[in-house]
Amino acid sequence: MQLKRWPRKNDPASIRARQEALALDGLVTSIDLEQFAGAAETVTGVAVIPVSVVPIGIDLGEYELDDTGAVRETGRATETIHVPLAHTEGGLTVSMTRGAKAAGTITTHVLHDRITRASCFVCASAADAIRLAGWLEGELDAMRGWIAASDDPFVSRHAKLREVTTHVVGPMCHVLWAWTTGDAVGPNMMTRNSYLLNMGYVMERAPVKPERAILEANMGGDKKPSYQYFHTGHGKTVIAECTLSDDAIRRILRTSPEDLEALAWVGTNGAVASGMQSVAFTPASAIAAVFTATGQDIGMVGTSSMAHGTGRRVEGGFHCSIRFPGLEVGTVGGGTTLPSAHDWLELIGCAGPGKVYRFAQIVAAAALSLEISASAAMASAGSENFFRAHHERGGLR
Amino acid sequence: MQLKRWPRKNDPASIRARQEALALDGLVTSIDLEQFAGAAETVTGVAVIPVSVVPIGIDLGEYELDDTGAVRETGRATETIHVPLAHTEGGLTVSMTRGAKAAGTITTHVLHDRITRASCFVCASAADAIRLAGWLEGELDAMRGWIAASDDPFVSRHAKLREVTTHVVGPMCHVLWAWTTGDAVGPNMMTRNSYLLNMGYVMERAPVKPERAILEANMGGDKKPSYQYFHTGHGKTVIAECTLSDDAIRRILRTSPEDLEALAWVGTNGAVASGMQSVAFTPASAIAAVFTATGQDIGMVGTSSMAHGTGRRVEGGFHCSIRFPGLEVGTVGGGTTLPSAHDWLELIGCAGPGKVYRFAQIVAAAALSLEISASAAMASAGSENFFRAHHERGGLR
Amino acid sequence: MQLKRWPRKNDPASIRARQEALALDGLVTSIDLEQFAGAAETVTGVAVIPVSVVPIGIDLGEYELDDTGAVRETGRATETIHVPLAHTEGGLTVSMTRGAKAAGTITTHVLHDRITRASCFVCASAADAIRLAGWLEGELDAMRGWIAASDDPFVSRHAKLREVTTHVVGPMCHVLWAWTTGDAVGPNMMTRNSYLLNMGYVMERAPVKPERAILEANMGGDKKPSYQYFHTGHGKTVIAECTLSDDAIRRILRTSPEDLEALAWVGTNGAVASGMQSVAFTPASAIAAVFTATGQDIGMVGTSSMAHGTGRRVEGGFHCSIRFPGLEVGTVGGGTTLPSAHDWLELIGCAGPGKVYRFAQIVAAAALSLEISASAAMASAGSENFFRAHHERGGLR
Amino acid sequence: MQLKRWPRKNDPASIRARQEALALDGLVTSIDLEQFAGAAETVTGVAVIPVSVVPIGIDLGEYELDDTGAVRETGRATETIHVPLAHTEGGLTVSMTRGAKAAGTITTHVLHDRITRASCFVCASAADAIRLAGWLEGELDAMRGWIAASDDPFVSRHAKLREVTTHVVGPMCHVLWAWTTGDAVGPNMMTRNSYLLNMGYVMERAPVKPERAILEANMGGDKKPSYQYFHTGHGKTVIAECTLSDDAIRRILRTSPEDLEALAWVGTNGAVASGMQSVAFTPASAIAAVFTATGQDIGMVGTSSMAHGTGRRVEGGFHCSIRFPGLEVGTVGGGTTLPSAHDWLELIGCAGPGKVYRFAQIVAAAALSLEISASAAMASAGSENFFRAHHERGGLR
Repeated sequence: MQLKRWPRKNDPASIRARQEALALDGLVTSIDLEQFAGAAETVTGVAVIPVSVVPIGIDLGEYELDDTGAVRETGRATETIHVPLAHTEGGLTVSMTRGAKAAGTITTHVLHDRITRASCFVCASAADAIRLAGWLEGELDAMRGWIAASDDPFVSRHAKLREVTTHVVGPMCHVLWAWTTGDAVGPNMMTRNSYLLNMGYVMERAPVKPERAILEANMGGDKKPSYQYFHTGHGKTVIAECTLSDDAIRRILRTSPEDLEALAWVGTNGAVASGMQSVAFTPASAIAAVFTATGQDIGMVGTSSMAHGTGRRVEGGFHCSIRFPGLEVGTVGGGTTLPSAHDWLELIGCAGPGKVYRFAQIVAAAALSLEISASAAMASAGSENFFRAHHERGGLR
Repeated sequence: MQLKRWPRKNDPASIRARQEALALDGLVTSIDLEQFAGAAETVTGVAVIPVSVVPIGIDLGEYELDDTGAVRETGRATETIHVPLAHTEGGLTVSMTRGAKAAGTITTHVLHDRITRASCFVCASAADAIRLAGWLEGELDAMRGWIAASDDPFVSRHAKLREVTTHVVGPMCHVLWAWTTGDAVGPNMMTRNSYLLNMGYVMERAPVKPERAILEANMGGDKKPSYQYFHTGHGKTVIAECTLSDDAIRRILRTSPEDLEALAWVGTNGAVASGMQSVAFTPASAIAAVFTATGQDIGMVGTSSMAHGTGRRVEGGFHCSIRFPGLEVGTVGGGTTLPSAHDWLELIGCAGPGKVYRFAQIVAAAALSLEISASAAMASAGSENFFRAHHERGGLR
Repeated sequence: MQLKRWPRKNDPASIRARQEALALDGLVTSIDLEQFAGAAETVTGVAVIPVSVVPIGIDLGEYELDDTGAVRETGRATETIHVPLAHTEGGLTVSMTRGAKAAGTITTHVLHDRITRASCFVCASAADAIRLAGWLEGELDAMRGWIAASDDPFVSRHAKLREVTTHVVGPMCHVLWAWTTGDAVGPNMMTRNSYLLNMGYVMERAPVKPERAILEANMGGDKKPSYQYFHTGHGKTVIAECTLSDDAIRRILRTSPEDLEALAWVGTNGAVASGMQSVAFTPASAIAAVFTATGQDIGMVGTSSMAHGTGRRVEGGFHCSIRFPGLEVGTVGGGTTLPSAHDWLELIGCAGPGKVYRFAQIVAAAALSLEISASAAMASAGSENFFRAHHERGGLR
Repeated sequence: MQLKRWPRKNDPASIRARQEALALDGLVTSIDLEQFAGAAETVTGVAVIPVSVVPIGIDLGEYELDDTGAVRETGRATETIHVPLAHTEGGLTVSMTRGAKAAGTITTHVLHDRITRASCFVCASAADAIRLAGWLEGELDAMRGWIAASDDPFVSRHAKLREVTTHVVGPMCHVLWAWTTGDAVGPNMMTRNSYLLNMGYVMERAPVKPERAILEANMGGDKKPSYQYFHTGHGKTVIAECTLSDDAIRRILRTSPEDLEALAWVGTNGAVASGMQSVAFTPASAIAAVFTATGQDIGMVGTSSMAHGTGRRVEGGFHCSIRFPGLEVGTVGGGTTLPSAHDWLELIGCAGPGKVYRFAQIVAAAALSLEISASAAMASAGSENFFRAHHERGGLR
């Protein structure tokens, strides 16, 4: 096929022309694509991924943002949630199920909510960049007012500017625009608003004239893990925790608190030795499975999986927790409105506005459930149970 | 619903019982689940994700492993590949298409192929751990022979032990078992063989008796990014490169070589300032889309997206490249054999044995195509084109 | 000699007893130790290190802290400073001299001033730690007042509490006490005040009772480089910059702007590839030499040497800069009052109160001078001039 | 004073002219500088730093390099060494003394010995860089022979080439020349030999002609901490360990094994949370003090202080250890031959050839002694003992 004749539109004729040109049929062309026509360009077929469901008992907080953009807990209730997992990794579902059972109830907390777009203004010198930075840090209120008063149709009213931080390196003045974005992840809305601030406010009024404005210059934490956002968060910062009883450890997890503690010690030191940023077991497996089922941005699996887990012996059991500094999740916008994604969100009470903190907590609880079970398997003598899980369950691999 | 009555099997009755209990219907239950019954436990429905297709011209190397496990190039040919992308990020597909067009042909290279399972033997002292390490490093040939001679049905013949490296910290002797795993990603097969080595060889014969053997203790690079594997690779190490002509930069990318160079400089310094391991633009978006379409392990999107991109002005154009130290890809095993995944692999000539290096190169070329276009949009004055792409294309968000 | 008889005091008889027991004489015992008796325990002799002097033209800012603890520039003047360097690395002094000459004048800026002691309160659960964190972040003003009103003789009046930040991981509530410490580096004074806050305020009044308070738990950036303080600073954040003219590059540095630019590009990518936090050439050599001459804490050479350098071609020359996020320097307290250290500080107008920002800028300018010259030597064809410097000047090695 | 009249030589008249111009007298000019005239340029005075002495019981290994460059233990003996510390940090000496006493005997091990110079060949494309890398990795034996046969007077016979590793990023082929350098740290000798290899061998014979050769491009680990050398080592890799008895912990360290274990857990997690590469307490304080007394390169304090410590409860006590991946130490060359440095090396039996592994172990044992005591002070209730040490001993600060 000639590149020049490649039809790019999403009308039925173009779709069919592509399918025929590529000789596609069967399952991948069996679904009506019209419902996905707005989601991407040159849509030509589908990927179908099986979805498992795992019941998890979660003590969920209810949260709202106060005027300063701080996350405040307003209530708390325990539910059993049937969490959907789209994946093909044999053993994952059964392992998460076991972990949730051993935990009994997992308690979750939302600590923080911010997402960042980091623009950069290149100046003639560090002196100029420092002068620009000083000016910017004093303009926060004025810039907020300017956005609010704008009648530009590009402005997003959902994205609220919360803080402005600068970082000068050589002649570069990086500006970290920190936003809250409601129930959406927010990259598009904050991109639009940041662009307007850069071009309509900063470039027009700054006391020094930058040579160049760049909308994002890698200090914003976009889709690549970084220490900055491992620390301060990009999206929702969530902690999940539970105490495993000695009995559950023995009966359900088939290991001992001492073995879990030894594993935590060795695994933490192994992560340090390897320059591994996250200290955890396999959070990405859980994050990926929930994200894929629920229409999240799968390109954010790596950043959202940054995790800091802890475990320690306590009276009568073993306390374990996991901290996700930046779960980049949404319950509106993006893929969440599409068929299948929307249905799976609906199943867990997370479709639409006002649900994003609930959803973030469910993701964290699912990940902790898997951590518990996988750790227990690894902690057994010689990690025999981990080996067996790979042998028996990993049949497709 | 009571947790105790939750049916766990994948027979039609159990599946139906779960679907009814959860009140699921519509698209998510519209597909026959029997074909996915072996892929995961408690399968209850499906996720359906639209797949776009992007034509990319690639100069692909042909490779084989020599006896030492080194990757050797045996040939090279240029093809147009129609790369499938499963995602719902408006603008991604059209952007990758533009980047591929600007590139003309992208040249790809496979440099290295290894995957690691890192076990840990906890000893009584560092002295013992050092003694164990010294012994282990001398046993490579004997251990290879022992595996080859084993009649244990758990042994994988596809996973070949290539090197053994140790890392002693305190009383812990970490052992990095480095494998090649044929056309599979290999976590299951190397896990089985590593377990057998640990328990059948090391624990039986070592000159010191370890207190404890742990099959993986976070030095193996499993699903969490680390500096160790950013450097040495986990999976296939691949570089993609091309030179953009001045004309293509102007006409197709609507920017200039000078602007691309300025962006590269600022973005690299932004990454450094932010403690961002990868220096690149948005490789995870491309990796995630190809992985999701082709049945790869989505939990490996974060690690496989570790990337080191470069760009510089050259005579008549702009040279750009991206290095993926560890693409964890397979063309056999795991999700690759399932419907839809298999079809999309087939489309690009990557289904089944003997195709893994081809596939790894296609992934890298797709990612570089997106890097080119996204960088060009960001490099335009004020990053206006990047803003416009988010505004116009990102409609679903 | 028997350990039990080892005399530990610093009176003349004990000193002499130690010197005789160890059979020390000559230069190491030739200096009267009485003047050092308060500096360390069991003082037994001296180390004598030669000090070179390098003239550097610096455009120095004058700075003061405003009420919020922000650094404000109040003036600026250019001086030639004769910077003392204690070291034995052949070539270092002559190289820094050459760099300063090529630069003509180096402009320096102080951006920020904070030092941190990070305590940790271990609670029963993450829930409790989060509750404690929420309470702590609201107590800043009250805690400031409490310290001010304290009549505890341990309280330092020089250490001013500026911000309180928390970081919860599992049941641990880390608290980052951010201080300014006047003209001292400040570890002792902030340690005393942080202890009093921990035990007298937090443990007495917190809404949850922590199990354990630890005065510093590695989030404070103490003597070990970290990404947190590479970003936010620990001590004085300083940038030094200059533009090398084409003529100076050719005549004095014997290279070209193009070669300097190529080196910067390759060196930055090499640092990224190697997981090297700092992007720079050899800042530690300069920092170490000035610190050793002037009685700074040599154990802080590693953290103070964290650096982010930049270089780029500009019209008529090459702009270069270096950012030190955390110069841990003092002009009062510690070793600065001792003979020789005090004299060398006096030489550069930095002995005593009110001089610490001046001193921090001189350190940064010295480091940039060395960066310029060493880079130029490395940028020459094949790095021949770098090789020659090591061959001809490094005679002692 | 005019810059143009600044006398640069080290003859007595020039020295005196500088001293007079700068109005220096007293202690800094009291020492005859002729003995330092070869150590640095424009020597003008001295820095005098008090030296304390701490007795430490060490079980030292004896080591030699085998033909492959591996470190082999040939014997072992226990000695009390009186370790010299040049510093002015009140409390450091007494704390290290206490730690050594609590330890009784510290056992040390040398694991590895390599130092690296990483050159970079910039090629026209990644394809060329990969071709160059493939060729280089096959030339090791030939390059060794070429150096051995060279009659170039610049060649160092002490620096032996052990391995050649390449790392390709874009068009850059980084080459890691790994050396052993006898009893010297080795930067000068490996620089000379690497230059000769680059220009005399690679540039003359390579199958592709590089555009540019750079002698060091930041993958060599030179004076800036990096993950690569935190893992693989730069200089001598040494582990020191001991088991503290319950009795010593109680009587000498005035804390408990449980408190030490809790501190280790919190401190490790704090380091992870902060993006702190090293997991340890204050190794740089000890490294700096021994380096300053013994004429080591103080600019290497930061890299040599990279450390990975461990601690865990064991039967009857608490096991603790510290791993230094890269102690950059020498007993010949550099500042080691100068007065005072040589005397202090002599005191510990480390002056001259054949002593470098002994010296590296003493440095590690000194650092572990300080770690033990400082940790114990921090582990006491509320870290009261740490606070008291800063209050009572840190008088000069």
